[in-house]
Order: sequence, then structure tokens, then C-alpha cells
Amino acid sequence: MPGYKSSAEGAGWPQDVGIIALEVYFPAQYVDQAQLEVFDGVSQGKYTVGLGQSKMGFCSDREDINSLCLTVLARLMERTGVGYENIGRLEVGTETIIDKSKSVKTALMQLFEESGNTDVEGVDTTNACYGGTAALINAVNWIESSSWDGRYAVVVAGDIAVYAKGPARPTGGAGAIAMLLGPHAPLVLERGLRGSHMCHVYDFYKPDLSSEYPTVDGKLSIQCYLSALDSCYHTFRRKADAAKEATSPPMSLDQLDAVIFHSPFCRLVQKSLARLAFSDFLATPQDQVSAKYPGLEAFREKRLEETYFDRDVEKAFLGHSESAFQAKTRPSLLLAGQVGNMYTPSVYAGLASLIASHTAESLAGKRIALFSYGSGSAATMLSFRVSRESQGPDSALARLVDSLADLPARLNARTVVQPQEFAQIMQLREDTHHKAPYTPVGSVDVLFPGTWYLSHIDDMHRRSYTRRPYTTPTTPTPSASTTVKDAPSPLPADRLSQQV
Amino acid sequence: MPGYKSSAEGAGWPQDVGIIALEVYFPAQYVDQAQLEVFDGVSQGKYTVGLGQSKMGFCSDREDINSLCLTVLARLMERTGVGYENIGRLEVGTETIIDKSKSVKTALMQLFEESGNTDVEGVDTTNACYGGTAALINAVNWIESSSWDGRYAVVVAGDIAVYAKGPARPTGGAGAIAMLLGPHAPLVLERGLRGSHMCHVYDFYKPDLSSEYPTVDGKLSIQCYLSALDSCYHTFRRKADAAKEATSPPMSLDQLDAVIFHSPFCRLVQKSLARLAFSDFLATPQDQVSAKYPGLEAFREKRLEETYFDRDVEKAFLGHSESAFQAKTRPSLLLAGQVGNMYTPSVYAGLASLIASHTAESLAGKRIALFSYGSGSAATMLSFRVSRESQGPDSALARLVDSLADLPARLNARTVVQPQEFAQIMQLREDTHHKAPYTPVGSVDVLFPGTWYLSHIDDMHRRSYTRRPYTTPTTPTPSASTTVKDAPSPLPADRLSQQV
Repeated sequence: MPGYKSSAEGAGWPQDVGIIALEVYFPAQYVDQAQLEVFDGVSQGKYTVGLGQSKMGFCSDREDINSLCLTVLARLMERTGVGYENIGRLEVGTETIIDKSKSVKTALMQLFEESGNTDVEGVDTTNACYGGTAALINAVNWIESSSWDGRYAVVVAGDIAVYAKGPARPTGGAGAIAMLLGPHAPLVLERGLRGSHMCHVYDFYKPDLSSEYPTVDGKLSIQCYLSALDSCYHTFRRKADAAKEATSPPMSLDQLDAVIFHSPFCRLVQKSLARLAFSDFLATPQDQVSAKYPGLEAFREKRLEETYFDRDVEKAFLGHSESAFQAKTRPSLLLAGQVGNMYTPSVYAGLASLIASHTAESLAGKRIALFSYGSGSAATMLSFRVSRESQGPDSALARLVDSLADLPARLNARTVVQPQEFAQIMQLREDTHHKAPYTPVGSVDVLFPGTWYLSHIDDMHRRSYTRRPYTTPTTPTPSASTTVKDAPSPLPADRLSQQV
Repeated sequence: MPGYKSSAEGAGWPQDVGIIALEVYFPAQYVDQAQLEVFDGVSQGKYTVGLGQSKMGFCSDREDINSLCLTVLARLMERTGVGYENIGRLEVGTETIIDKSKSVKTALMQLFEESGNTDVEGVDTTNACYGGTAALINAVNWIESSSWDGRYAVVVAGDIAVYAKGPARPTGGAGAIAMLLGPHAPLVLERGLRGSHMCHVYDFYKPDLSSEYPTVDGKLSIQCYLSALDSCYHTFRRKADAAKEATSPPMSLDQLDAVIFHSPFCRLVQKSLARLAFSDFLATPQDQVSAKYPGLEAFREKRLEETYFDRDVEKAFLGHSESAFQAKTRPSLLLAGQVGNMYTPSVYAGLASLIASHTAESLAGKRIALFSYGSGSAATMLSFRVSRESQGPDSALARLVDSLADLPARLNARTVVQPQEFAQIMQLREDTHHKAPYTPVGSVDVLFPGTWYLSHIDDMHRRSYTRRPYTTPTTPTPSASTTVKDAPSPLPADRLSQQV
């Protein structure tokens, strides 16, 4: 094509690409897991200790996947002050499918209408709880590629996790996250250190398209999760060791300041951290075992692939890793324990929880590893390096930490619902989620101010949404201190000619 | 993270990233559209002239989205000789959802098992017919990003397009494509010239999850398609003009050697090319109109957004662009006319058709524009530059062209099915597509050799697949001349340490 040149030709990758802002949405209603134990007639502690869950968020018929994602995206944009015209990519990760063809992303384009910006790449991406991670990786790749036009990318992940009556129901949850991505980020995705594990299994899946409920092989799902964790950690470690300087120690839990896991239920996360400790143990040179792992030498003959349900190994390494769990992982379980499994947002709600439990100063310079798992299965371990610039009101890290400081207050502002009423609302969802025409009957007043909700489904299945106004501040709303007034496009000067 | 460095830091984008190989799969059975007109009791020419369709491929209950994608991926790997261990990314675009959670990508991981390669990024991406394009863009971004580990990316797109009895049924089709992507490609995605248009509309969607059939607002869908085309072309032209050298002419159809469109039906594609001509006409400086568009001056007062169904404009510009259509677009409609709408693979089947109608020499150096549309809606116009190196058996372009030379022979090797039997098979799909347990009853012998098919669905909805062997070569099979024996990883030497 004589006469044409690409102005982007030869440009390199921008610096410090990663998460600039992170917004979390969870339902304003929850059921208490201890009360649910009584209501379900199960032994005390089955949900609260056995699963490690204390409360479970849920949605009435007023919320669907589109409304959850509208809410979290609108909040992200308001809190950061970024204009919709400055978004060049938006991708949604979800497994809450209400349309087999039309993406949630297109429903979110309603929020862009006033800006006139329609040149926004990305659609929806799906594999169980993994969609948010696929979207995050895609967004970072976009920013590093010649496709990047200097604007921000946004990743939204949302799900409504509901189970049929029975033992799996207390492992539900609901929520959404939105992440603003760009260069010069406070949470930088580390380059070249990613380990993925993808394979064909039927552990948890949703083949009954007319139902909101999954088909689950519970024991197989845990085995697949742990097996994928082993494989991802192996690859992650191998890539880290290949890239490290010769005098640096090999990758192990000691090199990670925080470790976050997808959380189907909190107890599995603690077992997963123990699993990584066991993996480190097996990788330790024989002459160092006694010094590093006193009393555990007997487990040297065990093999990863034979110990998914080995209670001796589990117990030994749960004990060995207890302090590591408290320091590196437990802070990430706030939302997981208080809201439940959000599916795709789960691991990013873990990231938000971790940040909310720290100051900018205590996070600065740290390395955070993250394990994302989606049944079926797709899994990745990746890591973030936290910016060292934590000081001052203009620090991107301080802004990120400030924006999540209200998480505990927002959790406490929720309304508790009795198990009997919760069961009725679940039944209502089951009876009506596929109906058209349909007008939801759930309370609007119970929703947090600023929440988008489903107002009507017409006879052609077309869904209409309305937003609850911010006029009744019964719960914390974006304050001046968490709203960034000045958030220009991250566009570098030499790319200005490409901007839309 | 003291002690760790990223070995990829500072690396640039590899050269000439794009499509290295392209494989197409379509069903071995078809119904004749002229016979269908008689069977349906509609006027002669309604389907064959009004829609521009001559034959329609379809699947019995023996094929589903997983089997289509297994078949096309297996063929791509066999024809190119690339080993599964050399694939670092695989993403599937589809709107044929048989599971709301488990991705088609994970089913394809069955083919990777023997290689032991599970570190393969990417899952499924969905928005109507657009998923293949989203996957293509994601794959190219991956290769240009720090995530790239030197291995190939593969994009698979597949769908089974079926409609309820009635006027939309003849616009069905089925098929799958697989693309091997990497640097030094014969079809290079042009950098920085992409125009997208995303918005919230209910034109064609699939809200009835228990049905294979879409909900369609036919007239709105055509308006949305044309409106998205206008918007994408506007953005594409603007970016091209901003990047061009000062002395070069502005972007217009004259600067494009071929223009390929997503094809819901062939007649719409011809109207779309006319639409681009109308758009060029409106953008032409007033003093050049009479010379360039003699006799069309009266249309200067028309506006794009008021002419979606303006028959005068349509007729005038269909006439004006007739020779451009014959030269730049018609060759891309072979598969669209002979198989029907494949949904996500459609526009890439158009690319395959274009290539199959040319020699390497006649393609070398050409620029190909492509318009991808998915209802809901998501649309992109992008362009490829064809390599200038067309000579010799080692030319990647010659290999690509050779590999598609058998398309006409493969189309002719199909079996025609009478409309009555076709209707029965459609009814069988409708009655059984959601059943579990279920054993398909459709003929296996009618499938092309090498086709994967559904052998059983068990009571847990788990699907099993079998492959028809290559032992009965009644149809063309990969020959020595189209199988590339030597296809190493595209890994550059300086990244060898990163390879898995």
C-alpha cells in the first residue's frame, strides 16, 4: 500500500501497565450463614467453619448481570473522574448468561451514549470463574500492542452465583468488579511470569441452559482446582527462575508478599496456601529440608498428584503455613467471607480486600501473586508488583488504597435477610428468571443508592434498566476524597495523533 | 522485587503479525435454495436472487459447536504441521452456546493432551457474529505484547446458524474456521487503522436459552448493520488519513484492492459495498463530484443516517459500484453463497473464498479491508496487507493460497439433501438439542473423513466425541502438497529462554 505508513510502527511497550483503579459492587442484602445452618437443619459450624463463610450476598429479581455491571462501571467512572470518551477498550468476563448472543458489553454501551464514543474494542469472555482474568490479560496485551490508541482499558467482571436447594446453596454469592487499566499504574502486572493450565474436564458446568443452577461434581472440582494450582505454580516458578538474576533465591512463597486465590469458599483458600507450601517443600534441595521444614521430612516421598485428598499432608502443611496464611492470604478473604463466591469477580474482590486491609505505605514495593481458576477448566497464576510511590495525595497508589477504604463500612451498611425470606427470593428467581414479559417485584428501596436495577422485560425479551438515585445517603457514597477530579487520558505525547 | 527482572522488558513488536494459515470446515450436507423455494411455496428467486443464496450447509444431531471446532482445529494442525506444543494461545469465538460456563476452548484442549501442553492462554469470546474478530484482535495483541512467549496463536470461530420455520430459515448455515497467527505472516494486520462501533441494540439476540433459535427484528438488524458499517468506515478512513503521507490520496474504495463483509446473506453484501461508495461520494470535495460521480450529483443532499432504506440511493450506488463489487468483493462470496451464514466464521470464510479465487502472484502486495458485524452490537473494520513475497515453494503466501485451492472441489464433494429431509433433520435438532442422556442418530458415513462428531451425551450432560477416520478418501484430504512438513515455532532467538 504505497503512501501509507503506520505512525505506531516501532513503538515499544508503555511502562508499568496494570490496575489504576478498582471498584467493587456487592448486593445490599445478605443472609447470615450461622442462621442458614439452623434453617437448613445442618450441624452448627458446617457453613461457618467447614466452608469458612460468614455471610452471603444475594440478588432479588431486581438485579441481573447487566444491572450489576452497569452499577459497578458507573461507580468506577464516577469515582475516578475518567470520561467515557477516554475508554478505548471494555471487556466483560461473566458466566451469568442471560443471552446466548448479545454481550453484556453492549448493554454497558448505554453508559457511553452521552459521550458519543462508540469506538471501544472488546466484547465478553467466558469460562466459568476465569472470564475476568482472561479479560484482564487481554486488556494489558492491548495496551502493550500496536492497537493501543492511548486511552484507558476497563475490565468488568460480574456474576450471580446461585445453587439449587441443598448442600451447595451456601456457597453462592453475587457481585461485580471493574478495573481501570493503563500505564503508570500502582499495581503493575509483572511481565513474563504467568503460568496457565487449561484442560478438558466436567467438574462444574452449566449445560441446563434453562436453569440458573450449575451441574457440579464437587469432589472432582476441588481436585481440578488443586491440580491446576500445582501446574500453574510450577510454570510460574519456572518462568520466574529463568528470568531471575543469578544471585537471587529461587521463586517460593518467601518471594511473595501476598497470595490471593479464587475463593469458591474460604476454607479451600487456606488449603491452597498450604498446597503451595507443600509444593515448595517438594522442590527444596534434600540438604535443606531439615532446616527449613523440621518435622516434615516424612512427607518427602509424597507426590503432588497423589495428595489432593491426603489428610495427613493437608494437616501438616496447614500447620506449617499457618503464619504465612495469616500474613499473606487472610487479609484477601474479607469479601469472600462476607459476600460469598462472586465467580468471575471473586479473585479481584480478594485483591480489593487485601488493599483495603493495608495502607499505601505498607503495600508499596510489594509483590502480590494471584491464582485464578475457572472450572472446565482454565487457570492462571500471575503477579503484580506494587508501585513504590506511596506518598502524597497525587500518588496513584494512595488514591487506589483510599478508594477501597470504605469496604468494611459498605459491608456493614447491608441489610440482613432471614433465611426463610432468602429461600422465598431464591424461589422467585427460579420461577421468573426466564420470563418475558416480566416486571420484577423485588424492593428497589433496599438497593444501595446509585444501583442500577432491572425495571422491565418486554414481550420481545428486551430489558430496561433504571438507576436508584444518590439522594438518600443511608450508605457511604463516593466522597470528594475518593473522587479523582483530574484523570486525564494516559496518552503519551507521541501518540496524540492517533487519539480518537 | 529485588533480584527479579523481566527478560522481555523493552522488546518491541515483532514484524508482520497476522494470519499464517487459514482452515475452513463446512458440513458435508446441504440443501439447494431453489428447491427450498419450491418446498416452502415462496416465489421463485426469493432465496436465490432476493437473498443471493444458492445452497445452505447444515448439521444433523451428530455435530455441535465442540465437534465443529475440534474438526477445524485438527485439520489446521495437520495441514500446517505445527505441533500442539507450539501453540501458546487459543481463543474461540462463537454464539452457539451449549454450556453457559464451560468454554469450547476447554473441549479443544482434548487435542493438546498428547503434547502435554496445558500452558495455552485464551478462552471463549462472544457477541453474536463478532466473536471471531474479537479473538483475532486479542491474538494479534498477545503477539505484540510482553505476554508473548514466541509461540503461535490460534483463533477458532464456529457456529451453527439455525432459524425457526419461516422466512428466516433460508438464511441459516454452519461451519468453522481456524487461523494460525504469528509474525512474518503472509496476511499482515495493518497497524493503527482499525475502526470499531459498539452500541446497545436488540436487533438479533438469543434470550430464549432453551432454544437454538434467535429472536430477530429483521429490519432493525439491517439498519444496525449499515449504521455500524458507516461508523466503522468513517473511523477507519479518519485513522488512515491521519497516518498517511501528505502526498498520498485520502482513504477511499480506490485504495482498497478487496473489501470483505460479514454476510448474513449475499445480497446485503453487495448493498454494503454500494454503501461504502455512497459514503466516499458524500466525502468527496464538491469540485470533484461531477468528474468522479457523473449523474449522481442530485444525491449530494442525502445523509447517511436517513438512507438505510432509501431505494433511490441504493439503486444509484449499486449501479455505480457494480464493477468495484465484481472486482473487490464478489470473489469473497463463494462460501457465503454455497454454505450460508456461518455467523462468527462468516467474514473469515469470505477471506478464504477471496484467497481461493486468486493466485499468490495476483494477491501479493494487495490491501484487503474486512468488515465484521455482530448484532447487539459490535462491529469493526480492519485491513490486511498481503505479503509481497509470493514466489517459490517456501513463500508463506504461496502455501496459504495452495492450502485453500481445494475449496471449490470440497464444496462440490458435498451431498445434496431434499428439503423434506432437511426439515426433518431441523425438527430432530429442535426436539433433541437439549436432551441428556442422548445418543445422536444422524448418519456418521455422510460426514467428510476426518470429521469429529458427537457420539454420546451422558446423564450428567457430559459430551463424548469420536473422529471419522481418513480411510475412505471420497473427498479431498490433506495432500502432501498442502501439508507443510516443516513449520517450526516462530520464536526469535533472543526469546528462546522464555519458551515453555
